[in-house]
Amino acid sequence: MSEEIVVIEGDGIGQEVIPAAVEVLDVVAETSDAVDPFEYVEADAGDAVAAETGEALPEETYELAANADATLFGAAGETAADVILPLREAVSSFVNVRPARAYPGVDAVRPETDVVFLRENTEGVYAGHEDRLSEDLSTLTRVVTGSASRRLAEYACEFVADGRGPDHRDGFTVAHKANVMRETDGRFREEVLAVAEEHGVEADEELMDAFATKLPLDPSQYGVVVCPNLAGDVLSDLAAGLVGGLGLLPSANVGADNGLFEPVHGSAPDIAGEGIANPTAAILSAAMLLEHLGYTADADRVRASVESVLADGPRTGDLGGAASTTEMTDAIVDGL
Amino acid sequence: MSEEIVVIEGDGIGQEVIPAAVEVLDVVAETSDAVDPFEYVEADAGDAVAAETGEALPEETYELAANADATLFGAAGETAADVILPLREAVSSFVNVRPARAYPGVDAVRPETDVVFLRENTEGVYAGHEDRLSEDLSTLTRVVTGSASRRLAEYACEFVADGRGPDHRDGFTVAHKANVMRETDGRFREEVLAVAEEHGVEADEELMDAFATKLPLDPSQYGVVVCPNLAGDVLSDLAAGLVGGLGLLPSANVGADNGLFEPVHGSAPDIAGEGIANPTAAILSAAMLLEHLGYTADADRVRASVESVLADGPRTGDLGGAASTTEMTDAIVDGL
Ligand SMILES: CC(C)[C@H](C(=O)O)[C@@H](O)C(=O)O
Ligand SMILES: CC(C)[C@H](C(=O)O)[C@@H](O)C(=O)O
Repeated sequence: MSEEIVVIEGDGIGQEVIPAAVEVLDVVAETSDAVDPFEYVEADAGDAVAAETGEALPEETYELAANADATLFGAAGETAADVILPLREAVSSFVNVRPARAYPGVDAVRPETDVVFLRENTEGVYAGHEDRLSEDLSTLTRVVTGSASRRLAEYACEFVADGRGPDHRDGFTVAHKANVMRETDGRFREEVLAVAEEHGVEADEELMDAFATKLPLDPSQYGVVVCPNLAGDVLSDLAAGLVGGLGLLPSANVGADNGLFEPVHGSAPDIAGEGIANPTAAILSAAMLLEHLGYTADADRVRASVESVLADGPRTGDLGGAASTTEMTDAIVDGL
Repeated sequence: MSEEIVVIEGDGIGQEVIPAAVEVLDVVAETSDAVDPFEYVEADAGDAVAAETGEALPEETYELAANADATLFGAAGETAADVILPLREAVSSFVNVRPARAYPGVDAVRPETDVVFLRENTEGVYAGHEDRLSEDLSTLTRVVTGSASRRLAEYACEFVADGRGPDHRDGFTVAHKANVMRETDGRFREEVLAVAEEHGVEADEELMDAFATKLPLDPSQYGVVVCPNLAGDVLSDLAAGLVGGLGLLPSANVGADNGLFEPVHGSAPDIAGEGIANPTAAILSAAMLLEHLGYTADADRVRASVESVLADGPRTGDLGGAASTTEMTDAIVDGL
């Protein structure tokens, strides 16, 4: 059984780091009894295709992603929101999984950081009903449903029960702003805590502003963090700053039987085309893709090799090294 | 001419740090040619009064604050939102000024941090129109007006022109999420940048998630940061984490001819009543009050004394010292 993977390099360094991730997937398939060679389907999205066709996300790409087993996406430039938000919808993703971990061998503001954000991926301010009501007044309707909140919480409970959270913390933390958004985040908070209780999962809570103060002061107090959509966006990016930047952070947009895997970083136009982009985030996104397809042992193999290269292998300039994308990728492939 | 200052200690350590701040104001008035003794009016708010009367913010307190020259507020516990949000409205505050600075002598995750947030203080998600539309669905209407955005931006331009921003950065940065909230934050961004251009003030911009990554990586790249209400709440609290916690951070809710001055920290029930709370944030809030009333030189005197005590004077336990609130306050008073 060969899975179909849609590959969207997109703009800028997406065109350098996604081929690196595909190479890793190929070598995994070659060297694993469990994994058959993947069937790749290339598709376009981003600034370049928008300049040509007027559409940052061609209908064809949307349909391919919607019908694939998984999609690997690189980055988009100015059109990022026009690409990534519909793609998340195409794969019916309800949770965005964002691990942020500091690695031995990598400079980090807070080397103790090891957190996983489970970000609601369909609603909040991203539901996007906006109106220009008058010359002076604009509004946005923020949406929170009990069903999406419960679904996210069910996922969080399974995630924790499967031991996928960091070892140093049991259960999870809900971050929200229910003291101000009493009805919407109030509902979110209540549903998430209720589901945790039904599943016997330990859950505590934190206001999102307090969380933003406390994470830099002592990241070790947090493990799995469950948040509404925009809170997850901002707080996970904050964690990225604590572990040394976006070059290391993968993410998984998980749907019931589909998924979209993407580095958290953008297209980095300043270094694009030079062959010096850090492939780590894309390769770790490929590891999340393997895990999503059930190849847990192979995902772990990829992660272990990445870790050992970060600890003392060749590294790209953003990590203080002088290796090219290819050299760092080769070292990771050799370690598989 | 003696100004009327409403003093609301509120709950928990509010009852310890506000008297410290009032003592500083008294000594300033005694020792300054410019400042006449203030006329204080005490008023209630918070959990304790809510437990007695059912109202966290009595109508009388609201009216007193609305009609005073300035209000000094400590903290409220569970009822914080019920107290602070109407109080900000009582003083017609349109901007929340939140400096976050690391001080020599105080442990900080990022000792280079020196930023001032100018947070919109009337709208965004705080406008608070929420509805429970069905068993499953809740909504919140987020509000952005051109007029509030321009007013904030005018203030920011004056602030920068008066040299009140940190020395290391000209102009200001607008932080927003206009790539997703295109109409509302799009309007905010556009108005703020337009006002900056009208005033010849240098302004750059940053997506709020990117800002959350970049601030911990290199705080020295930011000075004055202008944001919508919730973005300002979260990003200024993040900065608090980088400078060593909430114990040092003052804030000013500025209206046209009124103001509300409050430490950013809460009521800290765990240490309340022990006489060990750090009075710095409350005393620096009193300095912002002095500045607001036009006593700039006296405000600077207070800040200088606080800085020298933080550098090598007696300090409270949260700063690694063993001084009581009173001992630390006395040292600051002695330095005036
Ligand atoms: C590009 C943007 C729409 C997106 C988001 O806000 O979700 C990005 O910041 C992310 O986190 O993947
Ligand atoms: C207590 C709460 C309503 C308040 C806010 O969200 O503004 C607080 O977090 C603050 O920043 O002063």
